[in-house]
Amino acid sequence: MKVVIIGAGFGGLNAAKQLAKNKDIEIVIIDRRNYHLFQPFLYQVATAGLSPADISVPIRAFFRGRKNVEVLLGEVSEVDDKNKLIKLTSGKSLGFDKLIIAGGAKNRIFIPEWAPHVFGLKTIQDALSLRKNILMSFELAEIETDPQRKQALTTFAIIGAGPTGVELAGAIAELARFTLSEDFRNIDPSDTRVIIIEAGTRVLSSFDPSLSKKAKIALEKLGVTVWTDTKVTKISEGKVELGQDIISANTIIWAAGVESIELAKDLESTIGAQLKRGNRLLVNEKLQLINHQDIYALGDIAYFENEELPGIAPVAIQQGKYLGKSLLRLKKEKEVRPFEYRDKGQMATIGRSKAIAQVGKLKFYGNFAWYLWVFIHIYFLIGFRNRVSVFLQWLWSYLTYKRGARIIN
Amino acid sequence: MKVVIIGAGFGGLNAAKQLAKNKDIEIVIIDRRNYHLFQPFLYQVATAGLSPADISVPIRAFFRGRKNVEVLLGEVSEVDDKNKLIKLTSGKSLGFDKLIIAGGAKNRIFIPEWAPHVFGLKTIQDALSLRKNILMSFELAEIETDPQRKQALTTFAIIGAGPTGVELAGAIAELARFTLSEDFRNIDPSDTRVIIIEAGTRVLSSFDPSLSKKAKIALEKLGVTVWTDTKVTKISEGKVELGQDIISANTIIWAAGVESIELAKDLESTIGAQLKRGNRLLVNEKLQLINHQDIYALGDIAYFENEELPGIAPVAIQQGKYLGKSLLRLKKEKEVRPFEYRDKGQMATIGRSKAIAQVGKLKFYGNFAWYLWVFIHIYFLIGFRNRVSVFLQWLWSYLTYKRGARIIN
Repeated sequence: MKVVIIGAGFGGLNAAKQLAKNKDIEIVIIDRRNYHLFQPFLYQVATAGLSPADISVPIRAFFRGRKNVEVLLGEVSEVDDKNKLIKLTSGKSLGFDKLIIAGGAKNRIFIPEWAPHVFGLKTIQDALSLRKNILMSFELAEIETDPQRKQALTTFAIIGAGPTGVELAGAIAELARFTLSEDFRNIDPSDTRVIIIEAGTRVLSSFDPSLSKKAKIALEKLGVTVWTDTKVTKISEGKVELGQDIISANTIIWAAGVESIELAKDLESTIGAQLKRGNRLLVNEKLQLINHQDIYALGDIAYFENEELPGIAPVAIQQGKYLGKSLLRLKKEKEVRPFEYRDKGQMATIGRSKAIAQVGKLKFYGNFAWYLWVFIHIYFLIGFRNRVSVFLQWLWSYLTYKRGARIIN
Repeated sequence: MKVVIIGAGFGGLNAAKQLAKNKDIEIVIIDRRNYHLFQPFLYQVATAGLSPADISVPIRAFFRGRKNVEVLLGEVSEVDDKNKLIKLTSGKSLGFDKLIIAGGAKNRIFIPEWAPHVFGLKTIQDALSLRKNILMSFELAEIETDPQRKQALTTFAIIGAGPTGVELAGAIAELARFTLSEDFRNIDPSDTRVIIIEAGTRVLSSFDPSLSKKAKIALEKLGVTVWTDTKVTKISEGKVELGQDIISANTIIWAAGVESIELAKDLESTIGAQLKRGNRLLVNEKLQLINHQDIYALGDIAYFENEELPGIAPVAIQQGKYLGKSLLRLKKEKEVRPFEYRDKGQMATIGRSKAIAQVGKLKFYGNFAWYLWVFIHIYFLIGFRNRVSVFLQWLWSYLTYKRGARIIN
């Protein structure tokens, strides 16, 4: 059996790890990048707390010595369902018995004209661009004499109050208030404006309303302005319009939703795959594309028919493991059960010592939740080096309020 | 007294630290980058052992709370000696009582046409471009079917056998032989060619000939080919010509010498500064430009009239400290003594466990010299976080042969 996996995110990687156990299965894992990325910590790179290599592990490193796994740097241009073949943009083609599509999501910016004026946060490149812009904003503010321009330079508008938006807001506010406070001579850190703009009624709306309220209070204590029930009507260079209000901000961050990568749409037109909300590929209870039993999809690119699952790492991890095990069973001609998502709870952090967490009916808030958050995230940060290195940098950062990766490059 | 310092390398930074002790001295330190760079470890970034932030510290972080020090991100466009004014490319001007020029050096590529085809190693950008090229070469070789192209992809030509060239060669050879050996399916790591090309008669020519010989043997044991007495006659895209020989190499690295940054030449034409070998500014025994008693130069941009000093960190550090102290004495109207360089020895490393060191008449070689090298370099790596983080990554890398920063971005 030859299994081709597109994408080495949480889903694809976990599927490959399961499959690699059976030496008779030939696995090819294709990714546009040579590394697996721990996306939940991207905001730490964007705010100069960690370096890209701290949250990335070379895909090859997971499969050292596993002769039945081949890692290929490349991009898929076409899936040929009839001949069971995929083609790469490099011209190379690969046959498969089973294909797993785990390509993930990208930012979904409603109005294409807004895209050039906002920073996203889905890739290392996104995070480095954002880091550069944040740090440069302070550098430019330091030498700016015009008070209006100075204010715009130290204004950070974040669109979307999901976990990414809230985590970024907290980290930027702390960067301005504590880390940089003694470093500049001509900026009053308390003049820095960090504004979260949310169209919905509350922050972190996937949590219980009582936790949303606590998160909002924690954000405000850090000096973050939270505007809920507020719709963005236009974004242009350095400006966000909210109906009649206009905010001048040198840094505008888009954290208001994602959609599938282009591949999903391509599959709609080429092999008749069905798309759902956010251009996601509809899959059945065994994660098979409808009417394509040898093609599977999981994680952010998939839309599970039984229930709408959130676009978070645990879903992709569970689906990846499930699918790996399913194909192992299939190989042994054993029965395959449907996928069931086990909700182990969710959590989000607000700055360096507050978090909220919700596990079933249990709700946590404050320092304890933050320690829980740190522990769980570092535990799941794959790869030994990263765990130790990231932990020490967290500790250092926690004790000193410094951020080590504050370099503009 | 207002002192303006151009450049926050080893020289400028150490001068500023001394001067900052006297609160009546106003210090402005200008740099094109927001960070101080530990240049001796650049080759580690280029070969995926460390991340940029591991060898960089924000300049502002050195002067937290030092109200008499201002850090400015900018580039100098003009020095006006008569009016004691410098101008920045941003249009801003700054007055000074004393000016310290510590802008450092850049790669000196003899023939301008060669420049687009080689990688230098003076900046973080250089190191990241080189890292990307090295890692991509292996990725491309993995999918290349033409044996000739495959060979070119896994050929690394390094021009110049000084410390940078030797350190890079050792690190690349180890990367190919040990780190990546189990990661690829279609590359035989022992097919990787790492070739050092040196016009002189031996490697590391600033050391005793007996140590050069030992270094050459250590390189050869790692699989590095060393060609001394070999002149490069032409470089084009992916090709190095050595008289009648032609080597096809996807990665060509220039490690054959540096010269002053452009500023030195500008000063020759604008204020009549005298230049010496490598476009360096001639300074007297007190590090003053000849005929310009309020303008000082030090480190790689300066040529000390008493003796030609090597372009290494200890020279810049000693000159920076000396000049800081000199100006403190001047401020107190005390006598200033001439600069004297104290040669504390030199060292270079070859791969992960061999080094050579020379201190006066003492010569060290092998494992002991390597431990000495690690200890001294990590000790001098400025900034607490970096020291701990770098040390742990070294240790991890040493124990496992893995390299943590192997990400292509």
